[in-house]
Amino acid sequence: MTHLKIFSDSHLCEAAANLLNEGVSPHEIIEPNTRPASILSKPEPDPAFALADIAFGQPDVESIRRSRRLKWLHVSTAGFTRYDTPEFRTLAAERGMLVTNSSSVYAAACAEHVFAFMIARSRLLPEALRSQAANGDAEWLRLRAGSVSLRGQSVVILGFGSIALELVKLLAPFEIKITAMRRSPRGNEGFPTVAPEELPAALATADHVINILPENAASLKFINATRLAEMKPGVVFYNIGRGTTVDQQDLLAALRSGHLAAAWLDVTDPEPLPADHPLRHEPNCYITPHTAGGHGDESVTLVKHFLENFRNYLAGGPLRDRIM
Amino acid sequence: MTHLKIFSDSHLCEAAANLLNEGVSPHEIIEPNTRPASILSKPEPDPAFALADIAFGQPDVESIRRSRRLKWLHVSTAGFTRYDTPEFRTLAAERGMLVTNSSSVYAAACAEHVFAFMIARSRLLPEALRSQAANGDAEWLRLRAGSVSLRGQSVVILGFGSIALELVKLLAPFEIKITAMRRSPRGNEGFPTVAPEELPAALATADHVINILPENAASLKFINATRLAEMKPGVVFYNIGRGTTVDQQDLLAALRSGHLAAAWLDVTDPEPLPADHPLRHEPNCYITPHTAGGHGDESVTLVKHFLENFRNYLAGGPLRDRIM
Repeated sequence: MTHLKIFSDSHLCEAAANLLNEGVSPHEIIEPNTRPASILSKPEPDPAFALADIAFGQPDVESIRRSRRLKWLHVSTAGFTRYDTPEFRTLAAERGMLVTNSSSVYAAACAEHVFAFMIARSRLLPEALRSQAANGDAEWLRLRAGSVSLRGQSVVILGFGSIALELVKLLAPFEIKITAMRRSPRGNEGFPTVAPEELPAALATADHVINILPENAASLKFINATRLAEMKPGVVFYNIGRGTTVDQQDLLAALRSGHLAAAWLDVTDPEPLPADHPLRHEPNCYITPHTAGGHGDESVTLVKHFLENFRNYLAGGPLRDRIM
Repeated sequence: MTHLKIFSDSHLCEAAANLLNEGVSPHEIIEPNTRPASILSKPEPDPAFALADIAFGQPDVESIRRSRRLKWLHVSTAGFTRYDTPEFRTLAAERGMLVTNSSSVYAAACAEHVFAFMIARSRLLPEALRSQAANGDAEWLRLRAGSVSLRGQSVVILGFGSIALELVKLLAPFEIKITAMRRSPRGNEGFPTVAPEELPAALATADHVINILPENAASLKFINATRLAEMKPGVVFYNIGRGTTVDQQDLLAALRSGHLAAAWLDVTDPEPLPADHPLRHEPNCYITPHTAGGHGDESVTLVKHFLENFRNYLAGGPLRDRIM
């Protein structure tokens, strides 16, 4: 059996790092000299990379382009913006390089996060947790009357994939009318799915619009003044995709005009949003710092998912979460 | 047909008040001279009450005792503390007076509220919404790693009734281990249910303890230092029952010692909790001001529920949400 070298640049806890080393044995983990500070920052080429047969993490595109050995790239996130270009897809196809991502690892936690946004909104939790209203007073009556159940409401999900499928399961008890937008609907999604050109009609009646779009050339500023105007007045907008898929200025304007009742964002452009950014000071804008996919034992789950795929790879079987 | 007089002292919006007047016609709504300021405050006897055949709201016990006409009391809340005494039960039984409450009206919203608490906790929403952490920094890693899914966790629900049944439906997608405590388990609850004497074993393994107990002689300070010590270290405690069923000082001590990871309270003792109460300044204590049962169109729903029962009453059929 060939001795494989697996380049890993992920932030792993000790347990996950040990699991990875043991799991690939007798094959070998090789590490970069320097780790990227952030999953969104651009890594520098690393000399160790040239020795790698497999990469697990977020290696830079230039290193991959220069490599003469790399057969399989397993991206350690669900998003894969830096690889999602025609040039990279051509490179992968020409080399016969497999590309997988870790969407299964984050899908459940992402779905739970945006679901938490929705139910927190429906119970007006941020306001209620700040309130010291007395039973019967005007603020108390307003909080109670403003708590509107998700039951029977309508939701548009932008982006159909593993997160959308998990979210649909969580929403099931609320008997919500769900419509998803997908580049090419296949009719087997399990609920109504529309193509981008059919989106305006769906947006016009949705109580909640949930953006799960990844970043690529087609999705940049997908949500802009035009799309926002297509939405029903009083809609609540959520973003757990990528911040760059939403025009932040147009979003701000829609909040200020009252056309959007609220925006709940886990991703912004840039990240983190500066402390003095106007969205931070907009009363109906709620922001978490890109924590949606996070979960206890995250790096262990990430390594388990990689190892499952590594066994598939060694056996010549199909890989999970294959994207190219 | 006898012309009936229905005493109503509820806070109703105009639409609900009109619905009530039209719905009972040709029978008649009579109103008190003064309305109670709060559903928890003690109302004063009202002279109009002596004319009432039916009461819809929160009339005082003394007026009911003095009445020679009252045949049916429909309480406008889910809680009915002031009527839940042996003396009142005896009075109702001797007079053949029917007593119903409005638990159906509030059950779904109460269940959604405590469910919002649970999922907000699981995603660390209060901390994450305050955070401006940058991707990759220590706070960011802590928020992500601390976001622990409800999936597969265990929950003890104190109090079995319509709220518990609604909550169980919402929790279904999370495949949670649920145990409810009920005064006399019947075995037909649909999930494991224990009597109070079997509670310690259940508390010892629960990740979440949800108190839905109403206030009565048996439930006062039901949650005290002993019960709290029976719970697993790191448990999260929720209260949407009545504040008086929890010893607030013992709860504070359990939070301060770290035995409880967090407390999420919609009800406290007293209400509202004074601004300088130590629970308000405890970092892992989250309080909403008794808004759990509130929902859009609440008073319309309340009136519709009363009118449904009024039609049952006129037809001599069984009443919904009968408590005595």
